[in-house]
Amino acid sequence: MNKINKNFLKSSYHVKNLKLCSIRFHDNLKFPWLILIPRRKNITDMSELNSKDQILLMKEIIYVSKIVKKLFKTSKLNVEKIGNVVPQLHIHIIARNKNDSSWPLSVWVVKGKSYSKAALEKNLSKLKKAFK
Amino acid sequence: MNKINKNFLKSSYHVKNLKLCSIRFHDNLKFPWLILIPRRKNITDMSELNSKDQILLMKEIIYVSKIVKKLFKTSKLNVEKIGNVVPQLHIHIIARNKNDSSWPLSVWVVKGKSYSKAALEKNLSKLKKAFK
Repeated sequence: MNKINKNFLKSSYHVKNLKLCSIRFHDNLKFPWLILIPRRKNITDMSELNSKDQILLMKEIIYVSKIVKKLFKTSKLNVEKIGNVVPQLHIHIIARNKNDSSWPLSVWVVKGKSYSKAALEKNLSKLKKAFK
Repeated sequence: MNKINKNFLKSSYHVKNLKLCSIRFHDNLKFPWLILIPRRKNITDMSELNSKDQILLMKEIIYVSKIVKKLFKTSKLNVEKIGNVVPQLHIHIIARNKNDSSWPLSVWVVKGKSYSKAALEKNLSKLKKAFK
């Protein structure tokens, strides 16, 4: 079993463990944003997972995508494997809408902003309920 | 069967059709960049594909990822489903390295630049050979 990189521990919060991935809530009030982290050691790219895990990852991306779309009332998701800064394999699932602060550009062109403690707890509780 | 959106026809070139996706080469000399477009009608999100196609998409992403890593000599890929501007489902597979023009940031923070005709043809021929 791998450890969650400390960058994630500082900037995101545990929501739930699925069979393969930990779901974490990324602390950026500009976009509803989840991160899926496969709990496998020393993996930096999807092609390094075994084929069973690759399929499981796709299934978990779809499962989380559907809940995020419903919960945050959007049909538009950005699903991204970047990992230039933190190499540990992780997938961003970000709910977008036409009024958000970087639409139609990438989320990476605007600076992030943390939630207030109250808003963070509200979102986390909403997410934990949805993923129960 | 769907049609390729005209934005892609202007900015990318056909490489090969896989079982599900068309592989296209995106014309931006700043990054080696492929686009996978599932040949299915009216699909804007991976969760709208049927489950067989979702698994096929993952397999084709992995297949293309491995070839791109080898061909462009990198272990670092960005794999992104964005689609804010062009809704037709498409996946960017971008080879990154520490000397590229936006490292370690996202490719979306720098402006694209077209290849010369000669460089474009050289890359296309290299890709068509690799995906034969």
